[in-house]
Amino acid sequence: MDLPSVGSIIEKSSDDHIERIRRLIRQPSVSAEGRGIREMAALVGSEMEAAGCSSTEVVETKGHPIVFGRLDAGARNTLLIYMMYDTQPVEGEVWSSPPFEAALVERAPWGRIVVGRGAINTKGPMGAFFSMLHAVREAGERPPVNLLIVAEGEEELGSPHLPDFVRARADELRAADAVFYPGAAQDVKGHVKLFLGNKGIVYLELEASGASWGRGPLEFDIHSANKAWIDSPAWRLVHALASMTGTDGNTIRVEGLDAGLQPPSEDDAQLVAYLATTFDPDVIRQQNRVERFIDDLEGEALLRRFLFSTTLNIDGIFGGYMGEGTKTVLPHRATAKMDIRLVPEQTPEGVVRALRAHLERHGFSDIAVRIHDAYPWSKTSLGSPIAQAVLDAYRAAGVPHEIWPHAGGSLPMYLFTGPPLSKAAVSGGLGHGARAHAPDEYMVLDGGGGVAGLVGQELSYLSVLANFAARAGK
Amino acid sequence: MDLPSVGSIIEKSSDDHIERIRRLIRQPSVSAEGRGIREMAALVGSEMEAAGCSSTEVVETKGHPIVFGRLDAGARNTLLIYMMYDTQPVEGEVWSSPPFEAALVERAPWGRIVVGRGAINTKGPMGAFFSMLHAVREAGERPPVNLLIVAEGEEELGSPHLPDFVRARADELRAADAVFYPGAAQDVKGHVKLFLGNKGIVYLELEASGASWGRGPLEFDIHSANKAWIDSPAWRLVHALASMTGTDGNTIRVEGLDAGLQPPSEDDAQLVAYLATTFDPDVIRQQNRVERFIDDLEGEALLRRFLFSTTLNIDGIFGGYMGEGTKTVLPHRATAKMDIRLVPEQTPEGVVRALRAHLERHGFSDIAVRIHDAYPWSKTSLGSPIAQAVLDAYRAAGVPHEIWPHAGGSLPMYLFTGPPLSKAAVSGGLGHGARAHAPDEYMVLDGGGGVAGLVGQELSYLSVLANFAARAGK
Repeated sequence: MDLPSVGSIIEKSSDDHIERIRRLIRQPSVSAEGRGIREMAALVGSEMEAAGCSSTEVVETKGHPIVFGRLDAGARNTLLIYMMYDTQPVEGEVWSSPPFEAALVERAPWGRIVVGRGAINTKGPMGAFFSMLHAVREAGERPPVNLLIVAEGEEELGSPHLPDFVRARADELRAADAVFYPGAAQDVKGHVKLFLGNKGIVYLELEASGASWGRGPLEFDIHSANKAWIDSPAWRLVHALASMTGTDGNTIRVEGLDAGLQPPSEDDAQLVAYLATTFDPDVIRQQNRVERFIDDLEGEALLRRFLFSTTLNIDGIFGGYMGEGTKTVLPHRATAKMDIRLVPEQTPEGVVRALRAHLERHGFSDIAVRIHDAYPWSKTSLGSPIAQAVLDAYRAAGVPHEIWPHAGGSLPMYLFTGPPLSKAAVSGGLGHGARAHAPDEYMVLDGGGGVAGLVGQELSYLSVLANFAARAGK
Repeated sequence: MDLPSVGSIIEKSSDDHIERIRRLIRQPSVSAEGRGIREMAALVGSEMEAAGCSSTEVVETKGHPIVFGRLDAGARNTLLIYMMYDTQPVEGEVWSSPPFEAALVERAPWGRIVVGRGAINTKGPMGAFFSMLHAVREAGERPPVNLLIVAEGEEELGSPHLPDFVRARADELRAADAVFYPGAAQDVKGHVKLFLGNKGIVYLELEASGASWGRGPLEFDIHSANKAWIDSPAWRLVHALASMTGTDGNTIRVEGLDAGLQPPSEDDAQLVAYLATTFDPDVIRQQNRVERFIDDLEGEALLRRFLFSTTLNIDGIFGGYMGEGTKTVLPHRATAKMDIRLVPEQTPEGVVRALRAHLERHGFSDIAVRIHDAYPWSKTSLGSPIAQAVLDAYRAAGVPHEIWPHAGGSLPMYLFTGPPLSKAAVSGGLGHGARAHAPDEYMVLDGGGGVAGLVGQELSYLSVLANFAARAGK
């Protein structure tokens, strides 16, 4: 393959490639709200075709469809490319430009960035990957590996129907030698990350209600003067929650849910020790606008806490009157949305069982537990060809890199790393963006200050494919 | 005054009188949201004029205006009529008809009821009172007492600017012999209540935020994977709240806020003992759709709990993602709206001081406390002419009645019962409605099953005025 010629096409086509990303952002696809999902699946399908896929299917599931593309490059090896086309909601967020406008903004030292829901998670990287394939095609070339592209529309919901798809298409997917999830893995200072896995997740709702408690108002919020003789489901939720952690909000008190701080495996311990030499906590502080970490931890202790502890988080809490000013009511129900991030060896089933047993033991068995998402952690060996192919790309670009045993976030990679496929699966790529799940989500387009722009990002994807072809040779 | 002739006009004008109430309900006047307030003040002013007031002022305050009418009947005595023209919000409520449609609905055994925000609290009673004055006028009569009518637009906000008005107009208001607040005080079974006072109230917001805590995200909600190393303001609010009550959500643990169950005064103890013989808890159960009271209390113990205990209520709680489905965020702040109902001898200042000291003592001094409403309790003697005038009206109507030492709800009657006015002040009247502050708020129009309709309600107001004139004679 004539890499310089593809590279020069990528550079020349930069404006088109930016517009592709903006087009993807402008089409809302908020899976939690079912907003724009069908339109987005159609758009992703047509982008796959335009990028050179010989076949593209919009595969129906019991939820949102999966877009499945095949690109036969006549190569020896095949990569399964995992993508998502859905995003998180924007409700409750204050943006400096409309979240589906995909505004181009100048930000030093990076030049232009694109701001919008999905910019980094993950319409920016998706668009960049498609654009890379376009450039290959325009150069009269074929990609160095065959591709099976799976773009799901429910990642932000915990990928509830991806397992059905993987099971149904296992024979075809098994043909892939490994799995790659294109990202933009540079941080604000340009350090690029390789994550060798992900935490698992359970996302659930707890609801206290008069109806299921048999105390308090059963049907509607009532005048708050009644608090003097009628019980309160809102207080009940507060006390059920408070029983689950220490007053620091960090120490988990649910027996069997927190295994404490898990010691890393020998391999992981080595990775963490090395990571501690390259990791810069100021990047995390800056990106999230925080000043201090839990217990004011630093260095390796901070990393171990992040990677090897279970979390119990309140994502949302609501009940009663939430509007302006005064409304004196005794709410008939109150709800908390929570997520639990699972470290290796924890299972979603075990965690949910522990939570229910805790509620039972503390006399809160009337509190409804509704499970939304649940899947386990995943891990890939650093020695696998796809992990090494990504590292090769980082080294070739001369970018300082960090190797993480796994990410704190969750991805349904267990579907690929576990049986029946049992493939190596990693995510990576140059480029930078941030504020996933938060307002003013962005991805860098021009680049600067050690951060690659869209051109470097696309070249890094191509480099991963080429490196993988070289390393995986059968 | 020719009572029968006024009565027959009231009966004949029933349709007009119902339309007056619907007109008042159809004009939204949600004080918390500032919705429709000016329009409502103008409408109330024109209703006062039409009802025979010789002068009507829309008096500006630092908040929503007060509508002040004077009706000089050439009588010996003057009553100050207190009213409110504002209502609670409807946000978060599910209604069976639009809340500002003022739908007429048939409900056995009562015939027609009007359903809408403000139907019982208090546009229904307000409209009924104006209609009664209309009928007096049409009969060529004058009311048996002179009236000073004060209609405020901020009762649901805790009447923050009514004190300024009372101070500024003290000389004129002092001319009143007593204060009457027209209500519809029959319960679902027809028992009619006389409340000799009200609990006080403090309404406030507690907010935990990364910004004021210096821990957790400072500016926006961030990706929830960060819970592993970043503190959570939502958990902080939960633990601050949990520290305030026992796990029952009822036992107050804020030192100096709960004086425990206060023993009633000797007069009140007699009233409660008598009340226990007439009080029917099933009415409360039915109106509020509840099955059980706190601690499964019954009889006099239940009444004492209701009347002589402080309440600490969560009116609303919110933070993070509150929409459909999944959104994995670590919220940067969380808020609780709370009200505290004050029993005799508690002061708003003392209660707020106790709450702040509690937060301080438990290490939560970063939690913001925003006071919205705050005013003390009020009490009027059963022997006062206005209380006896209301009882006379109840006896004349042959309706079983209950005498309550005070109501569980709050009204700014302290402004009239305390210095500089120091007047007796009570609320009362026949008629029934319910679901104040709740969806499907209603007031009965036709009547039945022991409950008076609009005609009986208006006649009871007229009866109160006449009885007062007879008893207060100077």
